[in-house]
Amino acid sequence: MARASDGESVLSKHLRILGTFEAAVPFLTLSEIAERAGLAPSTAHRIVGELEREGLLERLPDRTYRLGVRLWELACRTPGALGLRELARPYLQAVHARVRQHTQLGVLSDTAVLFLDRLSTRDAVVNATLIGGRIPLHASSSGLVLLAHSGQAVVDAVLAGPMRRYTPHTIRTEADLYAKLRRVRADGWAVCNGHIHEESRGIAVPVYGAHEDVIAAIGVVVPNDDAPTLGHIELLTRAAREITVAMRAAYLPTAHPAATPGGRFRPLVTSSVRSMEYLESISAVAPS
Amino acid sequence: MARASDGESVLSKHLRILGTFEAAVPFLTLSEIAERAGLAPSTAHRIVGELEREGLLERLPDRTYRLGVRLWELACRTPGALGLRELARPYLQAVHARVRQHTQLGVLSDTAVLFLDRLSTRDAVVNATLIGGRIPLHASSSGLVLLAHSGQAVVDAVLAGPMRRYTPHTIRTEADLYAKLRRVRADGWAVCNGHIHEESRGIAVPVYGAHEDVIAAIGVVVPNDDAPTLGHIELLTRAAREITVAMRAAYLPTAHPAATPGGRFRPLVTSSVRSMEYLESISAVAPS
Repeated sequence: MARASDGESVLSKHLRILGTFEAAVPFLTLSEIAERAGLAPSTAHRIVGELEREGLLERLPDRTYRLGVRLWELACRTPGALGLRELARPYLQAVHARVRQHTQLGVLSDTAVLFLDRLSTRDAVVNATLIGGRIPLHASSSGLVLLAHSGQAVVDAVLAGPMRRYTPHTIRTEADLYAKLRRVRADGWAVCNGHIHEESRGIAVPVYGAHEDVIAAIGVVVPNDDAPTLGHIELLTRAAREITVAMRAAYLPTAHPAATPGGRFRPLVTSSVRSMEYLESISAVAPS
Repeated sequence: MARASDGESVLSKHLRILGTFEAAVPFLTLSEIAERAGLAPSTAHRIVGELEREGLLERLPDRTYRLGVRLWELACRTPGALGLRELARPYLQAVHARVRQHTQLGVLSDTAVLFLDRLSTRDAVVNATLIGGRIPLHASSSGLVLLAHSGQAVVDAVLAGPMRRYTPHTIRTEADLYAKLRRVRADGWAVCNGHIHEESRGIAVPVYGAHEDVIAAIGVVVPNDDAPTLGHIELLTRAAREITVAMRAAYLPTAHPAATPGGRFRPLVTSSVRSMEYLESISAVAPS
């Protein structure tokens, strides 16, 4: 493994620099990058130059940097993020069309839920979710669904960390967390009233993959009022089931009679039927 | 710069491995990765292990690898890709709702157009565009729009490379290319009948950024029939103008009276007005 003199791998240093950019801080100067990454200016300068040459960073006319389009291009080939998002999109849209509030898709990432998608309307309620953003598992309805279907190691990691208190309703104690997880497993869904913002209610259900494992959660964020939640839960449960069916179809061998068109593009690409047939015809001759 | 013994930078080797994954080939075994990257198996094994530890690659139960969700997470902070896509989305949707065929957004990347977004319907015409995929500039209507607004160096690079012939209508000669680029500049749009697939017509217009520079192209792919194109061109031109206005608003200083809510999140995030105000309140206290 290529290592700098301090024993840290080169890759880890590169990622430390890329990781200095956040949703709220998409533009940084070289000295801000060095400071945030905790690197000497000369080291930061050298690595930033390399990253810029490869298109992972882009320098703007005002001499600030931003993350480069090449990162996004690589990200378009991630079955676990973009592929799942594209497969799930029509079913999320169907929920969104009925609920007309935030509708979102998240996956487990360490002790957080990482949101892959979020549909919103201009007048929707307050929601802290960002696409590509994280919220701690204990605080979010999607997170609690994912945690309820994770191993004990993840629960232990959540309990070991600081459990950020967003509102007085955020779960903060071990007893409350275990009680909630039992409830989520028994019910098959999570409802969280005002856990992140007093005005908002999160409702989420699990999405199963091809092998009975929970691969994601889908949910809605709606006003925290006295409206019934069961209709939303039913909509979400049906959508989750449809996503599972779509996942299985996309991962069937291309020769299977029930396989959808698109050949090896299916886990990543969603397009018109004619386009998928066209891609399949290319895919069949592509080198294996 | 950290270099392997053959003089290639470590970063470039890492990217060579990540670059072995394609839309048609999202899953690879270790030996396939080594072969495609042109690396010795032992070298590939070492680098793949590093990339897996950092979440850039993920190993599946069947021992194949796929690109990791962490790449996608970084990609969500790219103003030039995801940010532009999110800003443009509602205007693309408005075009799509009228045209009911493929509607897409692309940016210049070397001698190709890199597509940031594409909306489709199940029954839409054949279209080779993939989100995150590339099509050579000379072949696509979006590409010709971008090329018409690029410097001579890009035109030279296109002419120097092999100009792939998709159909008999694909532009292949220097004279035809220059004639088409003059036409695109004069008209303000490009129409390409059957340049990539006999059945399909591409129509594209430029999108200007805050500084009179062309930052993207938007277009539709429709059946290559005798239907008039002017209505589509007008829809696209209006949408392009609206995207420019939205870009300017998102990049205004937060204190500006015309600034949209959302603080420093605006170049990347689109959510409900209440959510953007909430994010702005966080953004205001975030470290600069």
